[in-house]
Amino acid sequence: MLKSNRIKMKKINICIIGARSVSSGSLIKLLLQHKHVKINMLVSEVEGEDIEKIHSCLRGVFSGKTEKYDPKKIIKNCDLVFLHKSHGDFWEKTGKLVDLSVKMDKDLRFIDLSADFRLKDESLYSKWYDFKHGRKDLLSQAVYGLTELNRDKIKNAKIVANPGCYPTAVLLALAPLLKGNFVDINSNQGIYVYAISGFSGAGKNNNGTSAFNTAENIKPYKVGHVHQHVPEIEQEINNMLHKKIEITFAPHLAGFKYGILTTNYVTLKKQHEWKYIHSVYEKMYKNEPFIRLFNGCPEIKDAVGTNFCDIGFSVDKDKNTCTVMSVIDNVIKGASGQAIQNMNVMYGFDETEGLPYSEALKRASVA
Amino acid sequence: MLKSNRIKMKKINICIIGARSVSSGSLIKLLLQHKHVKINMLVSEVEGEDIEKIHSCLRGVFSGKTEKYDPKKIIKNCDLVFLHKSHGDFWEKTGKLVDLSVKMDKDLRFIDLSADFRLKDESLYSKWYDFKHGRKDLLSQAVYGLTELNRDKIKNAKIVANPGCYPTAVLLALAPLLKGNFVDINSNQGIYVYAISGFSGAGKNNNGTSAFNTAENIKPYKVGHVHQHVPEIEQEINNMLHKKIEITFAPHLAGFKYGILTTNYVTLKKQHEWKYIHSVYEKMYKNEPFIRLFNGCPEIKDAVGTNFCDIGFSVDKDKNTCTVMSVIDNVIKGASGQAIQNMNVMYGFDETEGLPYSEALKRASVA
Amino acid sequence: MLKSNRIKMKKINICIIGARSVSSGSLIKLLLQHKHVKINMLVSEVEGEDIEKIHSCLRGVFSGKTEKYDPKKIIKNCDLVFLHKSHGDFWEKTGKLVDLSVKMDKDLRFIDLSADFRLKDESLYSKWYDFKHGRKDLLSQAVYGLTELNRDKIKNAKIVANPGCYPTAVLLALAPLLKGNFVDINSNQGIYVYAISGFSGAGKNNNGTSAFNTAENIKPYKVGHVHQHVPEIEQEINNMLHKKIEITFAPHLAGFKYGILTTNYVTLKKQHEWKYIHSVYEKMYKNEPFIRLFNGCPEIKDAVGTNFCDIGFSVDKDKNTCTVMSVIDNVIKGASGQAIQNMNVMYGFDETEGLPYSEALKRASVA
Amino acid sequence: MLKSNRIKMKKINICIIGARSVSSGSLIKLLLQHKHVKINMLVSEVEGEDIEKIHSCLRGVFSGKTEKYDPKKIIKNCDLVFLHKSHGDFWEKTGKLVDLSVKMDKDLRFIDLSADFRLKDESLYSKWYDFKHGRKDLLSQAVYGLTELNRDKIKNAKIVANPGCYPTAVLLALAPLLKGNFVDINSNQGIYVYAISGFSGAGKNNNGTSAFNTAENIKPYKVGHVHQHVPEIEQEINNMLHKKIEITFAPHLAGFKYGILTTNYVTLKKQHEWKYIHSVYEKMYKNEPFIRLFNGCPEIKDAVGTNFCDIGFSVDKDKNTCTVMSVIDNVIKGASGQAIQNMNVMYGFDETEGLPYSEALKRASVA
Repeated sequence: MLKSNRIKMKKINICIIGARSVSSGSLIKLLLQHKHVKINMLVSEVEGEDIEKIHSCLRGVFSGKTEKYDPKKIIKNCDLVFLHKSHGDFWEKTGKLVDLSVKMDKDLRFIDLSADFRLKDESLYSKWYDFKHGRKDLLSQAVYGLTELNRDKIKNAKIVANPGCYPTAVLLALAPLLKGNFVDINSNQGIYVYAISGFSGAGKNNNGTSAFNTAENIKPYKVGHVHQHVPEIEQEINNMLHKKIEITFAPHLAGFKYGILTTNYVTLKKQHEWKYIHSVYEKMYKNEPFIRLFNGCPEIKDAVGTNFCDIGFSVDKDKNTCTVMSVIDNVIKGASGQAIQNMNVMYGFDETEGLPYSEALKRASVA
Repeated sequence: MLKSNRIKMKKINICIIGARSVSSGSLIKLLLQHKHVKINMLVSEVEGEDIEKIHSCLRGVFSGKTEKYDPKKIIKNCDLVFLHKSHGDFWEKTGKLVDLSVKMDKDLRFIDLSADFRLKDESLYSKWYDFKHGRKDLLSQAVYGLTELNRDKIKNAKIVANPGCYPTAVLLALAPLLKGNFVDINSNQGIYVYAISGFSGAGKNNNGTSAFNTAENIKPYKVGHVHQHVPEIEQEINNMLHKKIEITFAPHLAGFKYGILTTNYVTLKKQHEWKYIHSVYEKMYKNEPFIRLFNGCPEIKDAVGTNFCDIGFSVDKDKNTCTVMSVIDNVIKGASGQAIQNMNVMYGFDETEGLPYSEALKRASVA
Repeated sequence: MLKSNRIKMKKINICIIGARSVSSGSLIKLLLQHKHVKINMLVSEVEGEDIEKIHSCLRGVFSGKTEKYDPKKIIKNCDLVFLHKSHGDFWEKTGKLVDLSVKMDKDLRFIDLSADFRLKDESLYSKWYDFKHGRKDLLSQAVYGLTELNRDKIKNAKIVANPGCYPTAVLLALAPLLKGNFVDINSNQGIYVYAISGFSGAGKNNNGTSAFNTAENIKPYKVGHVHQHVPEIEQEINNMLHKKIEITFAPHLAGFKYGILTTNYVTLKKQHEWKYIHSVYEKMYKNEPFIRLFNGCPEIKDAVGTNFCDIGFSVDKDKNTCTVMSVIDNVIKGASGQAIQNMNVMYGFDETEGLPYSEALKRASVA
Repeated sequence: MLKSNRIKMKKINICIIGARSVSSGSLIKLLLQHKHVKINMLVSEVEGEDIEKIHSCLRGVFSGKTEKYDPKKIIKNCDLVFLHKSHGDFWEKTGKLVDLSVKMDKDLRFIDLSADFRLKDESLYSKWYDFKHGRKDLLSQAVYGLTELNRDKIKNAKIVANPGCYPTAVLLALAPLLKGNFVDINSNQGIYVYAISGFSGAGKNNNGTSAFNTAENIKPYKVGHVHQHVPEIEQEINNMLHKKIEITFAPHLAGFKYGILTTNYVTLKKQHEWKYIHSVYEKMYKNEPFIRLFNGCPEIKDAVGTNFCDIGFSVDKDKNTCTVMSVIDNVIKGASGQAIQNMNVMYGFDETEGLPYSEALKRASVA
């Protein structure tokens, strides 16, 4: 029945703004396997480029040319806009498209993979991203698109703020402990987050991601309370705790291409066995198609190429501490894959449609 | 129309013998996305193992346990058997299954990813693989499964001998020149094949593929007329030339996981422009969904994770020589992916079904 | 003239027990550049092997054959024994050699790169290493060979217990804070140590260090209070604090060959500026040839191939926490290099002799 | 005592022009271990930079600032100038320094690591390097610095043209066959050279060496008769053959940092056994400290970090062909190390002085 439904379903028309970024390449690649979408417009500052020359993975698979930003054309031809990745530019573009689409009476929706709608407090943009956000009205409307936590709100959202890669991995790792009120937030050290990212997280062409600087290397950077993902993580932690805390965040740049591993160290309110903590996670995540719980430690290689978030943990009963580890593919679950997952929720498609292993996951969920 | 067809189509039941190998893991992963198959049996010498523990990529996606080899059960429950990878063992297993299935009047078919049915001259098995082949009768029946070259024979084959990874890349690179009779086979140096393989080609757990021996390294091995893929390449070259020649083959083991690059150096019978040679390739491959011709040089990273064979070449007009480069993913187009492509041909499925980018490729072929 | 000089200088005679290990290969390579030593005996369980076949880096540089363990021969021919790396076997061998050398009135000395003399409390060996230590008398004699911290004791030690790779990096990172009494040890979370090691730390040939398991991967293991280096780190921390505390230790196996990065998170007793903490480190380490302080974060690639320990840190003044990062080459400063540094201290050689950059470092120390 | 010795020995004063390049970093690192030199001047277009910030490997080891090009100052303060690496600029600088030093009656000598003095026929510079060479007079004076082949001429050279990295590996591989007149140069395919280089060969900061383009990848480039090292290789081959031939050259960019592997395919004039060919190589290279002959195939990892050229070969007796493989560290034997080897020859130092394993090699040559 689902299948016949799917066939009849009209395809939604997609516009991608920022078609040149690594994540956009990944997004296009995934969307091509999606049954209910059509990629209609590829918008980029550089006009007229062949998309398969920008993203060599698309060669022989998909052709199309980038075009310049034209709000009316987008509204006329598209149902859903993905934006990626120039932070500080998209709030304005999205704002204009929202206003204009209202005027033109078109139900245009947005999944923004930049940071422009992630933070609710607009003053944080000045502090952490160095730009002034001009659409406070839209900030309050936008839904933070961590699918597993905000599924219901995402369904009806006009603007989904797709989470950052680090925040996705950290928040999925900590949510069961935070929501279950297990964390001792009065502990003087608070929550300590250690994270390693593949170099694709740093964008394509900069000195930091030269082979000289990444091969056979690991490099901590912005350690402490410095990285721009800190306020995003804190905002969502505070939402879950209903209380304000600060984290310590130690990100690292690694020599592998894809993947993020986070190791989150927290103090628990009281002694718990590993088994009990595990049951807490299982309860929260048992029906989630993209969360896999590990008895041991998750590792980068298993999550790369998928939309999974793999989670494992170690409990030190004597010290009341818990180390939660999570792994994602930074470009998929940390960007393009979660964006598609959000789209599926927004449009009532099967949540796994278009994502790696979708057919197997659909079957699994039926059984 | 195709789509509705697909829905009505009965699924074929699959048995995989040798479920523990790297390629079997890849095969299962791909088959899970295939619309017309059901994985029914996983046969392995080690019985009762969880398949998702063997292939961690299957975790949360597919469960199943290995079982022991039971010919009657296979014939009863399955339509198609994939075999991988213990050379020298499968001719006997396949032989028995063929005999028994005839007796039981069941149309059981085979795609053998080992070398056991690739060579037509059974004496070559003693020489190159160190075992005596006992089923000459089946050798002559078996079809060499290089899809692009033998599509028509594959359609009706009972046994498809899935090509080796190196031969796939080399033969697809050379076929247009060989079939078009461009190669000067009287040249004293003949055809010189240089090839580099990712370490996954060497299997999972041996000293050669320890991280110590592969990281930041490249290593030639079995250089000259020594590697077991030599007779396979020569057999198919000779079929195309209707003449016997010997190649020189210089394989290398590289420090990356997936991918094969071959560089094939040949003397042409006379001077040709690059443009003309290119048109020869284009003519032969223009409708092939899995061949991509490059104006420049193909590179490993673009083909990895796909079933594509990327081909480029350089022509030295003055010297009448041509260097043809080809790239494949050794585990996909070089094993599991081509096996599925062959299955698709055998059962009349869309040739791209279940393979990476299948939806986009179907669309492309419609347009 | 230089040569005759070199010849006149008396050289100490070296025996290496466990000549086949990765660290022994590195040790030999370094000793060959050392002006005051001669490698006299290479002892291994496998007798009669060419050392340059075991350690391919020695090809064309050094020849010699392994021989079996013969205590009398060692005492007769050698002044200094390096042992590496079968934990649980060397306390007995060393014990016998000590007793016998006393009897034979020979001043034989030992640098043990295994764990056999690192822990002072012999009961820890049963708990963490699963063997019973039979020479409590020697345990108390042995000096823990973290050169920068125990230089004076090392000078006259008969047995130097060369530190583990992780402990070396962790203890050098924390020593100034611990010795200066800056750490709030009543903090409930205590000291949290996160560490990443190149795969060479896991030995040469096991499943964990197959290229399949290490390439493009990072993998936490033995997270919590589980890894065998925990008691070693705690013993030395406790020595500095004069108090017993427990650490949390999260080690990771990375896909690069050499190098360890540790990130040590501690609570300070009170608020301090980065500048002040930096001055504390500078004061303690300013004359150390092998400690380099970084204003920013140290990274793996800069320390690999050297005997340096690179240290950087981030201070969170508001939270009274400090994250200290340290990087070493796990096989050099974490094993063979520090062993040579210890030897240099024991025999009054220039401390940098035989180590990478020795000539430049000597010159630097003169100036 | 050792120290005072060192001090009394007269040291030659070194100037490095182009101090920012990768090879200059390696050169400085090696020179610091050299007993008979002092680095006096570091010349760069960017003035006043800390050299240890440019080359992080020099941190804590060597300080110095870059200064601008000042011919008189160089002549006054230095005995030997290394130049690296802006092709097309150095012939003029060197020319000026030569003229001026003659005028000032100073014996200034040059080792040029750029291509500016490698080619004897100045018209080749216009064709292959796109600049017009203005000092034909100096071209004829300059000695091609492939140490093993031109040792005698290098001794008294004023200008040594340090070979390119690919030519070094190719020419050392082929020299015994070419000089011994074994190669059938009338073969229609001629000499086919296949080569793989680590990404350090492509310089530090360009798009080709971004981690995105190198990680888990291999990429052929400039295949045929296109790469700028072709005329250099041909010039030296022709010198050995006393005849003009053209090669085919297929270079590749690999994902590892250091190392070159070349595979050279030639037709022999007549049938030879492997053993005989081996004896030819042994005869020519037996006293060479930096050539290691392998019975099997050499591999990248063994030569990296050394000044060795490792050579192995496979002979196909039936086809009269021979595949010679050679491996070097592209930055050491392919640039900085060979430059120091040449300096040692020019100044009568031990040829291995300052190079990796020097002490062991000196000892080996005494014995």
